[in-house]
Amino acid sequence: MFIKKFYTMQTQTATNESTATKTIFIKMAISAWDSYNGRVTKLLATLTDEELLAETAPGRNTGIYLVGHLVAVSDGLFPILGFGERLYPELDKIFLESPDKSGHQMPSITELKEFWNKVNSKLSDHISKMPADEWFARHNNVSEADFSKEPHRNKLNIILNRTSHTSYHLGQLAYLAKK
Amino acid sequence: MFIKKFYTMQTQTATNESTATKTIFIKMAISAWDSYNGRVTKLLATLTDEELLAETAPGRNTGIYLVGHLVAVSDGLFPILGFGERLYPELDKIFLESPDKSGHQMPSITELKEFWNKVNSKLSDHISKMPADEWFARHNNVSEADFSKEPHRNKLNIILNRTSHTSYHLGQLAYLAKK
Repeated sequence: MFIKKFYTMQTQTATNESTATKTIFIKMAISAWDSYNGRVTKLLATLTDEELLAETAPGRNTGIYLVGHLVAVSDGLFPILGFGERLYPELDKIFLESPDKSGHQMPSITELKEFWNKVNSKLSDHISKMPADEWFARHNNVSEADFSKEPHRNKLNIILNRTSHTSYHLGQLAYLAKK
Repeated sequence: MFIKKFYTMQTQTATNESTATKTIFIKMAISAWDSYNGRVTKLLATLTDEELLAETAPGRNTGIYLVGHLVAVSDGLFPILGFGERLYPELDKIFLESPDKSGHQMPSITELKEFWNKVNSKLSDHISKMPADEWFARHNNVSEADFSKEPHRNKLNIILNRTSHTSYHLGQLAYLAKK
């Protein structure tokens, strides 16, 4: 009886210690994700529609294309992280599968800003409810066989990678702002 | 005796589980860090000196300035992570404290590429030898008081943030490549 209680206590310690570690790491990853998304949102608020329609540098992607691209990539997280259906799957053809200036009809800047806010706010809802352990489970773009060999390819890793992806394009979008 | 052995065993389990969790996070963060540094190195190898001397977009930072900036920021990790003295502290005045075109004499592109490789290779040596627990300790730019309230401000968090910083400027450096 004593031993059983002791065992439970110790298992609890193992679980608590591991959960505490996980919680810290989740906080690190989600803080960075929120921070870069917030920087994009802030930049979008300062840019005029005319600025967003312009190329970020001569011959390079326009602002509107990059915004659509970021919305489509973030929207793609819903199925990958097991959060359900995508909100705007129709954006893929325009912003992921085609380059800028492909001739596809784009949504307006006003619509894209709405999509950006909606995707982020709905993702945040799911993220805030995700149990710690679930972040370290396999994401839906990796097979069970590969995951057993590479356990770092988990759901939280997707957040890390997407944060750097957002940051990459934020560096380009920043060129639309007046100096 | 039995209980003592049991206790040791269970403590071991707690430690092992927590260490395994930490090892996975560390792998996630360091993989991303290596990957973005590798992308910069690869890009630098494809750009001519003339391309690197050019502005990344009209009126924006030149390639050489951004490379110096990235070297200086990565070099700054040595003291922050407790890896010892910086290799090139003289770069701060030119690439961190001054904007581009400040009139400061810059090292040559050949020198900056050497510095970039040297800083990364020496950082990698230290990173590979860092014990797992140490990554979750306070870094040297946060006070003990603040760290006790915000335990996510640890050494590994610096790596996460610097990866996104590198990615931000990589997005800009990419504009130097011929289309």
